[in-house]
Amino acid sequence: MQEFCSAFRISTALSIIVQKYGGTSVGTTERIRNVANRLLATQREGHQVVAVVSAMAGVTDNLLKLASEVSNSPTDREMDVLLATGEQTTIALTAMAIDDLGGSAISLTGAQAGIETDGVHTKARISNISPTEVHRLLNEGHIVILAGFQGRTAEGRITTLGRGGSDLSAIAMAAAINADLCQIFTDVDGVYTCDPRVVPDAQKIDVISYDEMLEMASSGSKVMQSRAVEFAKKFGVRFEVRSSLNDNPGTLVTHETMSMESVVIRGVSLERDQAKVTIEDVPDKPANASKIFQAIASANINIDMIVQNVSWDGKADISFTLHKNDLAKAKEVLKPTLDGLGNEVSLSAMDGIAKVSAVGIGMRSHSGVAAQLFSALGEAGINIQMITTSEIKISVTIVEAEAEEAARVVHRAFDLHQPRG
Amino acid sequence: MQEFCSAFRISTALSIIVQKYGGTSVGTTERIRNVANRLLATQREGHQVVAVVSAMAGVTDNLLKLASEVSNSPTDREMDVLLATGEQTTIALTAMAIDDLGGSAISLTGAQAGIETDGVHTKARISNISPTEVHRLLNEGHIVILAGFQGRTAEGRITTLGRGGSDLSAIAMAAAINADLCQIFTDVDGVYTCDPRVVPDAQKIDVISYDEMLEMASSGSKVMQSRAVEFAKKFGVRFEVRSSLNDNPGTLVTHETMSMESVVIRGVSLERDQAKVTIEDVPDKPANASKIFQAIASANINIDMIVQNVSWDGKADISFTLHKNDLAKAKEVLKPTLDGLGNEVSLSAMDGIAKVSAVGIGMRSHSGVAAQLFSALGEAGINIQMITTSEIKISVTIVEAEAEEAARVVHRAFDLHQPRG
Repeated sequence: MQEFCSAFRISTALSIIVQKYGGTSVGTTERIRNVANRLLATQREGHQVVAVVSAMAGVTDNLLKLASEVSNSPTDREMDVLLATGEQTTIALTAMAIDDLGGSAISLTGAQAGIETDGVHTKARISNISPTEVHRLLNEGHIVILAGFQGRTAEGRITTLGRGGSDLSAIAMAAAINADLCQIFTDVDGVYTCDPRVVPDAQKIDVISYDEMLEMASSGSKVMQSRAVEFAKKFGVRFEVRSSLNDNPGTLVTHETMSMESVVIRGVSLERDQAKVTIEDVPDKPANASKIFQAIASANINIDMIVQNVSWDGKADISFTLHKNDLAKAKEVLKPTLDGLGNEVSLSAMDGIAKVSAVGIGMRSHSGVAAQLFSALGEAGINIQMITTSEIKISVTIVEAEAEEAARVVHRAFDLHQPRG
Repeated sequence: MQEFCSAFRISTALSIIVQKYGGTSVGTTERIRNVANRLLATQREGHQVVAVVSAMAGVTDNLLKLASEVSNSPTDREMDVLLATGEQTTIALTAMAIDDLGGSAISLTGAQAGIETDGVHTKARISNISPTEVHRLLNEGHIVILAGFQGRTAEGRITTLGRGGSDLSAIAMAAAINADLCQIFTDVDGVYTCDPRVVPDAQKIDVISYDEMLEMASSGSKVMQSRAVEFAKKFGVRFEVRSSLNDNPGTLVTHETMSMESVVIRGVSLERDQAKVTIEDVPDKPANASKIFQAIASANINIDMIVQNVSWDGKADISFTLHKNDLAKAKEVLKPTLDGLGNEVSLSAMDGIAKVSAVGIGMRSHSGVAAQLFSALGEAGINIQMITTSEIKISVTIVEAEAEEAARVVHRAFDLHQPRG
């Protein structure tokens, strides 16, 4: 808890706090007034405050519906112009609410806030932020309300940042204005050691490192998109994930510290709806694996785990996992490639599998973690299919029917149900 | 008809046409596709095309409702940020529809189109337009879809132009890019000699001068706001008011020509819900009238007709008209002023009156128009209260119950029911 609390002890000097509120948190005008109250309370504590807000829940879906009614394939450029109105509506309403409550707020669109991006519409990347205007407004005593999810190109075109873009806006603005803390308000209390719906005694994590957060996210715990976490890591932005529905402290995501390694496993994540493809007897020549994965990539299919073994006769077996919805397409695009690799090559596939991962930087300094995990699953009679490991993560695939039981077994094997002080 | 048709005979060389579509014309996604088809048809005729669109009907009201839910007195600055999303939504959808129909369109917000205004939020005035970007896009073959009603200050703040602002956007952009014609699409077929609901044999006017249009507008024929017409007059922008629901030619509004004077009266307009205030026995000193009207102006009350007579004993009687909803407030703010003007000053007021006006530049070169009007009303037994005249307009107030009959009488007295060739 010590590190977490320190985030709130920086207020002797004037500090800058960025708070991000997602679509649910600003889903009604009543909730927008709640957010306004929260922002004012933070300012009264002596901080300079920047809020990053998303479109009100449901608004983006309505806009997408309108687009589908006028066009079968709306252009990405105009889609960005359309979707950007969602956040623009929220910033105006939030600023009005603050003024009505006796405060002073100024709204800024992504363009007005100097968030410059590349020109890849609907999934643009931030290339530069000019924080001059935000600093000026903060120094004049205003709360700055920034439209998340959006920016502009150097030529002035409106762009959006894609899924989870508002988190990215908040983290990037926090980096640009050298904020002391970025708070991501959402509808959960923070990051948990596992999904509490699966593991009822899962514990809220007080502090987690960027790398652990990234591995948790990529393993199915979708509190935040990986892009935003990666950006925070790159620019050293401390951020906290917490609930907009209560005042509970959340989870602080920060750089790695010595004390973090004392915890072997930080959390367990579970990803369902996976499928597995195994290609057997691939001649073990340099270019063969790349031919296979290029075929998959060209169909825009994301794959997750990859495992390869080479047998004594110079043939390789390659397995990989992907979302079950992509399985049929993957088999289709692989056919011509495999036909070119020789007669003996065969493909088998199955869906109905899940992935369970144990994540923790403590793994690096503690031996026997993999053995402990395999043994716990074995004792519970759960059969392991594929195994992959990274420096701070061990993942296994299992039959989906056993997924929840597996998560509970691993969670308990590493004592994650114990509250930590 | 000759002048009207000439507007469509400029197409031998490549010409620029600006088309403005109001909220009803883009009120549904189906109507937006109709607008897209119309724009493409115009482009196929060989023109460069700029469309100026309003917010979809109902959208602005929804935004105002949201604002009222978060704040009792929303700031004008944030109101502009909020309302500007309405037009931004329409430009994106219109551009998408054109692309879907095989064309190529690029949307521009007011800010992107270089429409610069002063900083008077919710009723900003256009100070400058930089048409470079619009010209560039037109020369690349795109249809340009411009958000009406909005602009930005030199510092980059979002502004809106107030009521009828989209008409103004269209006229101003037409002036800036030196367009050959500006077409204002609306839900009526054009400007009529009188309101057809009142005078069933009212005729559509083919050509009307700016001044006549202004007098018609200020006298109750609210096809367009006066500001847009004034702007068109100032910069010599020819524009046509026509329906988006059919292909009928509309009314061309243009500079005055010799032939226009042959028509004595262009049209008759009717304004209801008026009230009249008469202040009697005002000592005839220089500052007294200004004291009265400053009191009214400071309460933001618009007054219309003003009549003053000075009697033989050095006392003046001052009468003026205003909207009946402003009457109570006007009496209230006048009380302290009148108390300061002396004991004999008295105020009387009545509502339930209407104004009927006859408008036409032919009046200047035809004598006896006033007499003809008064005599027609007298023969019909309609009593005239106040009279004011300008160079091209005669207005009278009457009891509201007789207003429609008065309009029909005047309309027929000047032969306006006869179709003109």
